[in-house]
Amino acid sequence: MSRPTIARVARAAGVSVASVSRVLNGLPATEEMAERVRRAVEELGYVPDARARSLKVGRTFQLTLAVADVGNPVYVTMMRAVEEVVSAAGYRLVVTTTGPDVVDEVALVRGMARGYADGLVISPLRVDDDLIKSIRECDVPVVVAGNVPARAGVDTVRANSPKGMLLAVEHLLAKGRRRIAFVNGPVDTVPGSARAKGFREAMKANELQAVGEVEAADFTFAAGRAAGKELLGESAYEAGSRGDGPAATARLDAVICANDLLAVGIMHELGARGLAVPAEVAVIGMDDSELAEQSFPPLTSVNLGSAERGRRAAELLLARIEDDSRPPRRIVVQPTLSVRSST
Amino acid sequence: MSRPTIARVARAAGVSVASVSRVLNGLPATEEMAERVRRAVEELGYVPDARARSLKVGRTFQLTLAVADVGNPVYVTMMRAVEEVVSAAGYRLVVTTTGPDVVDEVALVRGMARGYADGLVISPLRVDDDLIKSIRECDVPVVVAGNVPARAGVDTVRANSPKGMLLAVEHLLAKGRRRIAFVNGPVDTVPGSARAKGFREAMKANELQAVGEVEAADFTFAAGRAAGKELLGESAYEAGSRGDGPAATARLDAVICANDLLAVGIMHELGARGLAVPAEVAVIGMDDSELAEQSFPPLTSVNLGSAERGRRAAELLLARIEDDSRPPRRIVVQPTLSVRSST
Repeated sequence: MSRPTIARVARAAGVSVASVSRVLNGLPATEEMAERVRRAVEELGYVPDARARSLKVGRTFQLTLAVADVGNPVYVTMMRAVEEVVSAAGYRLVVTTTGPDVVDEVALVRGMARGYADGLVISPLRVDDDLIKSIRECDVPVVVAGNVPARAGVDTVRANSPKGMLLAVEHLLAKGRRRIAFVNGPVDTVPGSARAKGFREAMKANELQAVGEVEAADFTFAAGRAAGKELLGESAYEAGSRGDGPAATARLDAVICANDLLAVGIMHELGARGLAVPAEVAVIGMDDSELAEQSFPPLTSVNLGSAERGRRAAELLLARIEDDSRPPRRIVVQPTLSVRSST
Repeated sequence: MSRPTIARVARAAGVSVASVSRVLNGLPATEEMAERVRRAVEELGYVPDARARSLKVGRTFQLTLAVADVGNPVYVTMMRAVEEVVSAAGYRLVVTTTGPDVVDEVALVRGMARGYADGLVISPLRVDDDLIKSIRECDVPVVVAGNVPARAGVDTVRANSPKGMLLAVEHLLAKGRRRIAFVNGPVDTVPGSARAKGFREAMKANELQAVGEVEAADFTFAAGRAAGKELLGESAYEAGSRGDGPAATARLDAVICANDLLAVGIMHELGARGLAVPAEVAVIGMDDSELAEQSFPPLTSVNLGSAERGRRAAELLLARIEDDSRPPRRIVVQPTLSVRSST
């Protein structure tokens, strides 16, 4: 008799194929469900070996999410959303870090072709022709959570940074702030260039001139603090904790930051100079990550839809795994503003 | 001629086997190194197929780190340390989430036996006989970053919570605080029970009585805020923003929290009641995660050595992969105190 199939295990256990794969792949299942599947597996002598099966049917039932920095809370939000979708479909999600360099992203995508996972969602900080080539040539389905040119011929889900910047600027105007500074991340990154363009457009549309603009070395808290020193002046004296705080605030009454980590770094520098948030300086972050509500004061932040982008990317990947012939889709998720106490 | 081996590729490329495996596994490498390896692979017709190779030599060059909650910054610290060690050894690290339930941890360990990875570092929140059994039976090496009984016969690296609690209590005493409250996570978890025991011992050793003790529903920020409401009184009125703040501080002048997320939640509740940190109430967290320096005021936190635990666990796993015959090791990492502005 032929080697037992997962379908026969499912029939014997009286459960769905997806349920069998959930149990076999170590995904959450009730003890009762797991027990029935294990019994059926034993009775039929089914060999649930990932390597044997992946050679046979080319499936590992594992999907990979690649992010630049696991320490950035925006990726936590995305991870949770991706995991919810893929685990419901019987896949285990594993997360791996590429770091900020495109060469490592390219190496990862090339490595994917080796069959550890059935698909990849990648959120690249930097994109070049090598990365686009490696994605096009990758022989497992890839979905980009971010912005790559259409010629990459790949499903993409991206945010709308310019729209998000417009929400931030108009919120500050409504609060009576007009002396707005901007703290961006590296402009040679996909989000950095999009935020820069968006900020310029949003200010122009409202006939405003930026009172300060700083490019942080990275999208991290430490880089945000360093950017704050640059924006507000190196020494506490210069920036006013000796009483010329008003002079400092005369220079700016609001700061828009390219993500929440940068914004929290800026708030620490403002605090170190005795400048009150939001009384003297309002601060807005981007990503609306868990850090936004944890920070003090809680941070007003542009929600660029990281959870929805994660969900949509996971759905596109699952659909692509089922049918690789469908034309690539390019989805744009619209932003909203989460108003908290920092503005 | 026999199928080319990775060793022959290394010789042809004039690089080490580890370097070849780094490139083949999509780990960071210089473009020049990657190019030499790719050329040698082409010349020799080496087939770097993970599934074929893992059937042949039982290696995937992928290692898994399983944590309860990717949103807890303590795991970020651990992840970075594990990744540094394993990627230097030519392995790719992937991270997966088990959630708080032991049944999901058991399912994951059972799933590991299916050959997706060469080894597992697991940091379980809850441990039961099923988990111990699944770890003992797992046919890839497992290292536990946490505390499981010796009968599990597995390498473990754990923190010393009681020593950490002693550091926290004695620091508060040195600051003249004696009316100390304790906010723990669930006591049916490994860290929760260790923290509870440690707190009792540390208070007893200093002849102190806790002025309040609350068990949060989870080790999260939201659970910390809820615990703060319970500890300080549900309504702002009751707890003193109408002027009986002093009455509230008369009840306690310091709070020790079982992790940083709980501590930040408590600081928000103190702030909501107009109680100044540290002037009226000092707050100490545990884990000394990135959140500790990002919080405002920056949080004094017990460093339970999450980075060192990650490094040691990764080293034990690599050693175990090379030699499964060596007797299990049980390593305890000692804590330190990182003093910041919250005390």
